[in-house]
Order: sequence, then C-alpha cells, then structure tokens
Amino acid sequence: MKFGGTSVADAERIKRAAERIVRAKEAGTSVVAVLSARGKHTDELVSLAYEVSDRPDPREMDMLLSTGERVTCALAAMVINDLGHEAISLTGSQAGIVTDSGHTKARIIEVKADRIRNGLDDGKIVLVAGFQGVSQESLDVTTLGRGGSDTTAVALAAALGAGVCEIYTDVAGVFSADPRIVPEARKLPVLTFEEMLEMSASGAGVLQLRSVEYARNHGVTIHCRSSFDDGPGTVIQDEEQTMEQALITAVTHSTSEARITLTGLPDVPGIAGRVLTALADANINVDMIIQNEPQSEGHLADMSFTVPRDDVALARESLESLHSELGFGEIQSDDRMGKVSVVGAGMKSHPGVAAKTFTVLGEAGVNIEMISTSPIKISCVVREEHVADAVRRLHTAFELGADAVLPEDVAGVHRPKVA
Amino acid sequence: MKFGGTSVADAERIKRAAERIVRAKEAGTSVVAVLSARGKHTDELVSLAYEVSDRPDPREMDMLLSTGERVTCALAAMVINDLGHEAISLTGSQAGIVTDSGHTKARIIEVKADRIRNGLDDGKIVLVAGFQGVSQESLDVTTLGRGGSDTTAVALAAALGAGVCEIYTDVAGVFSADPRIVPEARKLPVLTFEEMLEMSASGAGVLQLRSVEYARNHGVTIHCRSSFDDGPGTVIQDEEQTMEQALITAVTHSTSEARITLTGLPDVPGIAGRVLTALADANINVDMIIQNEPQSEGHLADMSFTVPRDDVALARESLESLHSELGFGEIQSDDRMGKVSVVGAGMKSHPGVAAKTFTVLGEAGVNIEMISTSPIKISCVVREEHVADAVRRLHTAFELGADAVLPEDVAGVHRPKVA
Repeated sequence: MKFGGTSVADAERIKRAAERIVRAKEAGTSVVAVLSARGKHTDELVSLAYEVSDRPDPREMDMLLSTGERVTCALAAMVINDLGHEAISLTGSQAGIVTDSGHTKARIIEVKADRIRNGLDDGKIVLVAGFQGVSQESLDVTTLGRGGSDTTAVALAAALGAGVCEIYTDVAGVFSADPRIVPEARKLPVLTFEEMLEMSASGAGVLQLRSVEYARNHGVTIHCRSSFDDGPGTVIQDEEQTMEQALITAVTHSTSEARITLTGLPDVPGIAGRVLTALADANINVDMIIQNEPQSEGHLADMSFTVPRDDVALARESLESLHSELGFGEIQSDDRMGKVSVVGAGMKSHPGVAAKTFTVLGEAGVNIEMISTSPIKISCVVREEHVADAVRRLHTAFELGADAVLPEDVAGVHRPKVA
Repeated sequence: MKFGGTSVADAERIKRAAERIVRAKEAGTSVVAVLSARGKHTDELVSLAYEVSDRPDPREMDMLLSTGERVTCALAAMVINDLGHEAISLTGSQAGIVTDSGHTKARIIEVKADRIRNGLDDGKIVLVAGFQGVSQESLDVTTLGRGGSDTTAVALAAALGAGVCEIYTDVAGVFSADPRIVPEARKLPVLTFEEMLEMSASGAGVLQLRSVEYARNHGVTIHCRSSFDDGPGTVIQDEEQTMEQALITAVTHSTSEARITLTGLPDVPGIAGRVLTALADANINVDMIIQNEPQSEGHLADMSFTVPRDDVALARESLESLHSELGFGEIQSDDRMGKVSVVGAGMKSHPGVAAKTFTVLGEAGVNIEMISTSPIKISCVVREEHVADAVRRLHTAFELGADAVLPEDVAGVHRPKVA
C-alpha cells in the first residue's frame, strides 16, 4: 500500500491512512506500506535549501529531502502501535532499496528486502519511507526524484512478490479524461501497462511513468485508488490478463509544452544527432521532433521539437552554444503549446483511429502542429488554447463518456469494445 | 565543533555557523562539526507525535526526532560547498555512533569513526547529525536524549583524538553565577571536569552533565564558547592541567525542585531501599535524601527527598502504590523549593567553606531545609523565593564578582586563589 503526500498531509490524514493499513492487516493480509512526505513538506525543505544555497549540493539535497518521508512513517507507526498492532518504520536504506549514486534522481539497482521480510514474518506491519534509497558504492542517502514513492512501492511489491501494489491517492482512479475538463469522464476499471505508460507519458498525472515501467517489467499488478473512500479504483495489469481491449481507453492532454524550431540547418549527416545530444546533456526531455527535408542535397532544413515549457530557457542556452559550430539560422520558440493524445490498446488492430482523430480536430477548427504515434497512441501538438476543446471533442467522438460506463468491478477484466 | 539549536536556528545562523567552520578549516585544522536541530524544530516534531499519539512509541519517536539534525547538517553542508570547501553530512549511524537499544535515551557503546576519518583524510569537512546513533543489535535509529548533541561531539572528539571539543552556544562561556541573577558574575576561563560536573548537576545549564562525564572519562578538553562572537569562552580540562585551583569557582542554583516527605515510616531495614527503588522504576531522579532516625528501635521515622518539580505527580503515584505494603503515614509534598550550590575544586583542602556558607545564609535569614555535600560542592535546599538572594550573597561573600576578574586568557592556567 502506498500513500501519497495528500493522503498523509496532516495528523488527521495520517491517522486515516494508518487505520486503512490496519484494516488490510486485520483482513488477513501481510502489509508493507510506503509513505510519502506530508503534503507540501518536501516543497518546504526545497525552499529551505534554496534559502542557504543557489545551487544546493545534490548529495546534501538528498540527505535533506529524505527526512520528510521518515517523519510520516514514524508518525504512522505510532498510530498503528496505538491501534494495537505492531508497526516498524524503515528508512529506504533500512528497507534495502539499493540505488546508483545519481543523487536527486537515483535508479534502483537492487532491493534487499530481508529486513522487511523479517518484520512481516514477525507479524509486523512494515512502513517504508518512500522516494529514497542508499547508494551501492558510497552508502549515501539517495532519492529517486519527484514521485519516487510510487517507484519505491512497485519495487518493493516486485521484490516481495506481493499480490498487488495499491497506490492510494487523492483521486478515485485513472479516468478516461481529466474530469476537470470532461465532467462525464469515467473511471477506468482496468488498464494494460502499455496503456497506462502511454497515458502517464502524455499527461495523466495519477501515476509516475517510471513506476509503471517498473511494474510492467516486473509484472506487478497496480491498483490505483482513492485514499478517501473504499471503492475500487483502476487496476493496471498485464495485457494477457485483460480478455478484451477497448479500442480507445482515454484522452489525455498536457498544457505545458513548448516548441523550439532551428531554421536554416545545413543538411549534413549527423547534425540532428548533435542537436539532440546537446539537449540530452542538459537533461532536457525532447518529446516530438519534425525535420523538414530540404528540396535537394546541400540545401537548408528546419528542425522543430517540443520540450517541457519550463526547459525552454535552458534549451535555448544549450542550442546557442552550438550556433557557431553548426551555423544554423535562428532559434525560434513558442511556449504556448499543448498536446492531446488518444490512447487505447485496441487501436493496434484498427487503422481508422488516426483518421478519425484528425477529422474530429479538423472539424473543430483545431490546427494540428505536430503528430506522433505509437501502436496504441496518437498524439497531436496543438496550440494551448485549443487543448480543452480538443479533449472534449475526442472524448465524445470516441464515446468514452458516462454512457459507456461499466459496472465498477475491479476484478472485472471483461470490458466490451467501445467502438 | 558543536553548534547548538540556537546557533543554527535559521538559514542566516546556519550560514554563520558554516562560515565559522570554514574559518577553522582554513586556519589549518581538520574539522568535524556536530549540529543540533534548528531552534524549536525538535519541539515541533514532538508536538506532531503527540498530535497522533498520547504515548508515542519510543522507537518511532527516535526515527521522527532524528530527522531534525539531518536537516541542519545537509543545509550547512550546502553552504560549505558553496564556500569552496568540500563538506559531507553524516547521520549518527553513518558517523558510527553505535548505541544500546534504549530508545529516546540511548547510551553510546562504541564509536566506529572510520567514515569520518576517511572524509578527513580526503580533506573534507565532516558534519555529523547530533543526538543520534544506531542500535548495535537491531540497527534501529536511536537518540541520546535531550542535549545529546553535546555527548555526540565529545564522543567523536574522544574517538578521533581531537585536540579540543568546541561547544558553541548562545552564551559566552560558563559563568561564576547566572548573570541574569548576578550581573557582576564573571566568565570563568578554566574549569576542571569535576567542577563542571558539579555545576551541571546543580543547575548550570550550559553543558549537559552526561557530556561532561564522557569528557572526563576520556580526557577530552572542552572549550565552551559563544557562536555569536570570536572571544574565548571557558576551557574545561583535567585537574592536572590547571596549576592552581580557586577555592570557590561558582555559585549555581536551581528553582525547579520539590520536596516529598513520607511520615511515619516503620523503622525496619530495607524500607528506604523499597521507596527509592519505586522512584527509580518510575525513572525519577532523587537528589537529596534525609531520614530522621527515630528515637528508639521500632519507632516511626520520617523520610524527605527532593525530586524535579515536574515529577511530583508521578512520584506521588509511585509512592501511593507502596502505601499498603509499607504502611507509612502520609505523603507530603512542597513543590516550591530551590537549591543553591557553591562549587570549587579548591575547597577540598579548606574545611571552612561549609561554615561560611551556612553563616552567610543564616545572616540573610535564609532557612536551609536540606544539605548535601561532595568534596568540591556544598548544596543547600532553600525555599524558592530565597534562591536569588542566596545566590547573590554567596557570590559576594566568596568574592567571585567582577573585582576578581582575571585577564581572559583561556590558555592561562594561573588563577590566584580567591580566598
């Protein structure tokens, strides 16, 4: 069971989470619970760091930030002990989360869960501080990056062979679209890992991409559900376990994209590689890329790509440094871009989805600036102001709304094809 | 170097402490710095615990409280790195502070300082989270009790063979009396361990008793000084290092004493032991004890003792439970008691000190309710309202005031006898 920051934001909520953990234990299961830091606590610690330093040392940042989850775990353990059960809180290091030395964004190398297993064997509820580990080489405290507690939970579920990894959050599950934009969006009872990966990558904030990848790679079934009610949420599992797949599952979006265009690039081999390497070195995630082929050899080409809006300044900086070497024309950027994506495992065998998507957006007068596709996803970059309308129209066109609602049966792997 | 909570209370003070650490490093010394939690941070964490639990589990309390010092260390390390030096922060566990499993009041068993030594060998400044360790048996986070950071610092100084353990605090050193009560009290340049032990035990709050004991047992010279100015403070060292000793060094006091009297105790062997065992089991420190011997065998006796005022209710509770077994008369308590003590290593060879003390208090009309002595200390329990006056009169009578001030020479082991 993993509880996110909003689910343990204050004493009252920590008590509620602890009670929920105890109920699961009393129902006969062995429980390991991963807790995040309280609500805005991590942000407060980050502010503290920037009060003393403009560029906080990453190793020390990890030492600092890792305290937040420890506080929550200790508090929850106190509550559980008061409720008559034995609880033990463990730091990431104590829980055996061994990582590389990539401070503030460490990768898990290994999970040595002996101490957790011993706790479970003793009948204890084991609470683990999320988002953190210990580096293999130097035994320093590391953190897994924002949202890393999801990854902690999935990694522990994998190491322990848990039946399910329950991710408790402030929403009821994964929806067919953002309910703030599409009120009739419905909660999805089941998703495949691939669908969830595409959704996380294209804007669905409910689960961290990396944790879903980890779950897919290790076959960990995730149940994403609300910490504020007892209803079932969304189960994310292997494709083989879902008997039939919906053509389209969800419409996702993001409104924090920016487009950067390099004009007048000389058309010589390897030049795109140089550009993308420079951006990768600056740790900037490039999403979509379009290169306009020049008319004939030796002519000049344009190259456009999207990056997170917050990274525009950094991206321009890295590209400026290439200017003399590559001799391109200019760097243009437009930071008011958005992205709308249609995701569904069933579209693999239905070639008409792309055509329908473009038609719907075209009829709505939404200009598609860039397109990218995967076997189960179509993404369109559009101007930010068109995003909400595009999401609503696609959600309606693919009939994802309340009319299509299934009985909320998390065990129910039967989902009728929607189209 | 150890910095207490007020010396690292906010970003500005953490920066100042870090600068001071860097100055020491730049002066050519190898520096290990032990930091406390920020100002009221530990109190806030304690409040959090009591928000979720009436009786917080001690193991979890330690997990919770130990985060405060880690935050300070990480922040200070960031500052030092910005100042162009390499710093590394270590938790108590990483620093090798191995303790027993007495959660919230663990004792240090061993200091495995290899990681600190490696850091120093690499030219780094090593910052250690004070007040905490790791239990030998279960590898759990432990804390050493309030004020435990002093003990951490002294223990590390001993393990590393440090030249001096500098304790930075919000006062300029150890004074001949509390300057809030005696304005002409002077800062003492040098003290023996024994004097400091007696002073800490009898009310001087500047250094924790336990850390002084540890320093004496391991021959660690302590320099207690202000974190807000660069002047020398008070050096506490072995008696052999101080060439001559003042007859009287200081007058200390406490105003948080209570007296409890058991009347009509049957005069049978072992009864005092039963009473004191009951109080020890409740973890109550009994200070002075007086038993009025009965006139003849078999008669009834009274027994009085002092306890910290906060423990009166708990003490009464433990004693009530003995009532039927021991059959004493009643439990009387008076919680408005105080204590005045005269401390000085030189009084060992001067029997007149006690007489002078009683005379001074008698002339002032201060009734002495109980007396206890050690070779270098005389303590008198008086009513709380007489404490301040008693301190002032004794300070004057033993000529400890500004007139007796020596040049402030911390290396100066020559101190003229005052009497």
